[in-house]
Amino acid sequence: MRVVKTISEVREFVRSVRKGGGCVGLVPTMGALHAGHLALIRKSVRQDDATVVSIFVNPTQFGPAEDLAAYPRSLEQDVAACQAEGVDLIFAPDVTNMYPEGFATYVEVEGLTDGLCGRFRPGHFRGVTTIVSKLLNIVQPDRAYFGEKDYQQLIVIKRMAADLNFPIEIVPVSTVREKDGLAISSRNVYLTAEERAVAPALYRALEQAAQAVGDGASGRDAEEIVKQTLEGEPLFKLQYVEAVHPETLEPRGDQGTPMVIAAAAHLGSTRLIDNIKIEGRDQC
Amino acid sequence: MRVVKTISEVREFVRSVRKGGGCVGLVPTMGALHAGHLALIRKSVRQDDATVVSIFVNPTQFGPAEDLAAYPRSLEQDVAACQAEGVDLIFAPDVTNMYPEGFATYVEVEGLTDGLCGRFRPGHFRGVTTIVSKLLNIVQPDRAYFGEKDYQQLIVIKRMAADLNFPIEIVPVSTVREKDGLAISSRNVYLTAEERAVAPALYRALEQAAQAVGDGASGRDAEEIVKQTLEGEPLFKLQYVEAVHPETLEPRGDQGTPMVIAAAAHLGSTRLIDNIKIEGRDQC
Repeated sequence: MRVVKTISEVREFVRSVRKGGGCVGLVPTMGALHAGHLALIRKSVRQDDATVVSIFVNPTQFGPAEDLAAYPRSLEQDVAACQAEGVDLIFAPDVTNMYPEGFATYVEVEGLTDGLCGRFRPGHFRGVTTIVSKLLNIVQPDRAYFGEKDYQQLIVIKRMAADLNFPIEIVPVSTVREKDGLAISSRNVYLTAEERAVAPALYRALEQAAQAVGDGASGRDAEEIVKQTLEGEPLFKLQYVEAVHPETLEPRGDQGTPMVIAAAAHLGSTRLIDNIKIEGRDQC
Repeated sequence: MRVVKTISEVREFVRSVRKGGGCVGLVPTMGALHAGHLALIRKSVRQDDATVVSIFVNPTQFGPAEDLAAYPRSLEQDVAACQAEGVDLIFAPDVTNMYPEGFATYVEVEGLTDGLCGRFRPGHFRGVTTIVSKLLNIVQPDRAYFGEKDYQQLIVIKRMAADLNFPIEIVPVSTVREKDGLAISSRNVYLTAEERAVAPALYRALEQAAQAVGDGASGRDAEEIVKQTLEGEPLFKLQYVEAVHPETLEPRGDQGTPMVIAAAAHLGSTRLIDNIKIEGRDQC
């Protein structure tokens, strides 16, 4: 496995893989790799002849009041973890490589980025779609892997890849959870012991709502269930809960399945997000 | 030469060229091909193993009050012209192929699109950078060719290609002119005989200003010369004249070379644009 910083080294590596007729998988990450990332990486290592992991804490997807400076960084451990999983190349560029002076181009997906996290993180998805566009052009992979935990991000990137005709398959990977149900996230390290103890309540609330939806409840009902359940958890401050269509992300309102119930909540200073998907009857 | 409508046919063609080790040139056009387009096409035919010409009147780069519906269309003649020049593939998609229902993604270059034509055609360059991104991902050419007549467009696309890391060379091609100096444009067919007779005054005004700049005049002086010269042409209504830096497109103000003097003017209902470049001393 090699760790490279420059775009030309990545291109050279990918060219050599292609020369041998191989296909390339890309797992874009911000580092601080955890079991969720490893699930993406394993899927690529299994499917692709070569797996490229990018590690880059992308400044354009952080708002001015967000945790860019504090975001956990652990390149040494990340490299070791990738090595153990059979990754072929790590691309860990500097900010000035990715955003040189005079940088002025942004990729934006309209509509899908208005609700859910987009409402509370203006500019966030613009930063995500811009950096992912750059990475897709740098690596030119056959497949790129994204976790379902960031559900809106997954849908936004699928839309972008289709709209801009990137010749690539976007592969979704299921959320990895701790034994108690907490979705694994790089930001979980911010939690105090007390906060960590109650953190699984978010997913439990989503599961309760999903159960009700399976029994015929509407989107609005589902949102109400999550709200009421989390009101019983004094450390939690719910930012939003929205029941949306899994593809269009439009509110389900009085409608039932198919549905994704997505929520964000603050536990102290840490923001957690999670979601649960309930398939439509015809998809069972 | 083949004429295809679907993205998969383009991809198949390009794959076969690449298999043989060939390189691919793309000339993106809106059809109504004229000598300016043919100069782009010839440059590609000379340099590249295969030349793809796209013909697509792109709705997202026209404003609501602009000439989308009236824009000249002449596919049959365009096909014949491409055939005569040795083009290998024409990609002439339908609007629904390029912008299917649910399309929501746009590519935007900030700053460079604020002045010049951008000030008078809000959204125009967003439409251009979006469709060019799509075409670059569909064709994946080694080189793409753009005329210097649309100078701001050329600089915006160069910026976009660099910022988003498209693995491609953007090749500029000099403006082709009628014998009397009028820059060749698909929109010249809109001109009445009387308008056509005075149309070369735009470039003559730019040449006078460029002469003065060569003799030491500033950007502001150059703008003044163009304004005053065109005031003597009653049919002309100058929309803007700006003397800018050739790369940053920032106003030159009191400064001299290097400089591009760019102007847009209405002749009756037809909008003409043109520009002239004066290199810096050190580039001579």
